[in-house]
Amino acid sequence: MLKDLMTWRYATKAYDPARTLPEDKLEAILEAIRLAPTSSGTQPFEVFVVTNPEIKKSLGMMGMNQAATENASHALVFASWDTYTEERIDSVHAASESVRGKSELADRYYTGLKGLYVPRDPAINAEHAARQAYIALGFAMLAAAEQKVDATPMEGFDPAQADKVLGLAERGLKSQVILTLGYRGDGDWLEGAPKVRKSAEALFTRVA
Amino acid sequence: MLKDLMTWRYATKAYDPARTLPEDKLEAILEAIRLAPTSSGTQPFEVFVVTNPEIKKSLGMMGMNQAATENASHALVFASWDTYTEERIDSVHAASESVRGKSELADRYYTGLKGLYVPRDPAINAEHAARQAYIALGFAMLAAAEQKVDATPMEGFDPAQADKVLGLAERGLKSQVILTLGYRGDGDWLEGAPKVRKSAEALFTRVA
Repeated sequence: MLKDLMTWRYATKAYDPARTLPEDKLEAILEAIRLAPTSSGTQPFEVFVVTNPEIKKSLGMMGMNQAATENASHALVFASWDTYTEERIDSVHAASESVRGKSELADRYYTGLKGLYVPRDPAINAEHAARQAYIALGFAMLAAAEQKVDATPMEGFDPAQADKVLGLAERGLKSQVILTLGYRGDGDWLEGAPKVRKSAEALFTRVA
Repeated sequence: MLKDLMTWRYATKAYDPARTLPEDKLEAILEAIRLAPTSSGTQPFEVFVVTNPEIKKSLGMMGMNQAATENASHALVFASWDTYTEERIDSVHAASESVRGKSELADRYYTGLKGLYVPRDPAINAEHAARQAYIALGFAMLAAAEQKVDATPMEGFDPAQADKVLGLAERGLKSQVILTLGYRGDGDWLEGAPKVRKSAEALFTRVA
């Protein structure tokens, strides 16, 4: 059950450096990212699967995130499009055609989308793309829990540094969030701590 | 299995106006939103659960989203904080203390967070808060699938209109995305269409 996955998972603070994530578990997590829905089906991000120790060490993680990332088995860097371009949307449209066949509805849809996105301020487009990556980030966290893999979403890093190390600017990408994967280690002060969440009353308003 | 939920779900384009979501299924979906992780545990959003037909009709949905929303049983409006304030972060800190007890680590953490967020450009804070809502949006979509409830994430609406109808500005909130819930109806051209997703090769880069 989904709720069991949601309560099992927590933002792991310390990893066991001796344990490596098996490939099949990694693949299941990546598949969840791949299947995550995104606005207009653009999937406007790429994910860098970092296992190289030197690169994992040099992503610009801040404070306690540095040791956790070094000891984690994998670091997934979610890097979203710096803007929407004609080429990028054409490529989404072409992929749709290759799976679903040609359709006038899709033609009109993607033409409209280009008209809306391409002239828009790239900063707004970049933010819009980043949001989509957060849907996939959530899917990845649940997929990790299903695989009994520990995971930590991290925004506390220097994106300029990560972009540089991974060569993202040249690819029109910006690093947004990092999900480390592995197995919890000694000294994790958050392990077993009760979850803190707002009450349903505080979070939801019925408009009936 | 999570993958079954991911492949079962699709962005439903037409709802059966005669079918209403039972309360227990709604609660399971809301609980997934409540349990979704967010940056520093702030849960910087609220969700408006709209069933009132007049209000559901007047959220400013664009194009085909209008009829779908009117026919859907529920519309969940994700509205995120317009900025981070001292009061909001203090309240997160207090909630953490009430569950986990007083801790110097938490004191330092939330003091640092206030120092970082409160003076920051509210537009950056609002974007950061909106991203967190997208994690919860993804959780809600999977929870809906587990309940065999159809759902449609929609960005195609006029946020100024939705904000006005729901009185969000006065509460320091901005509508970001709407998830309709209900049961698929006749004339849904997307029902049964194969999913279009990039290949793993296109989406993932191994840095080993």
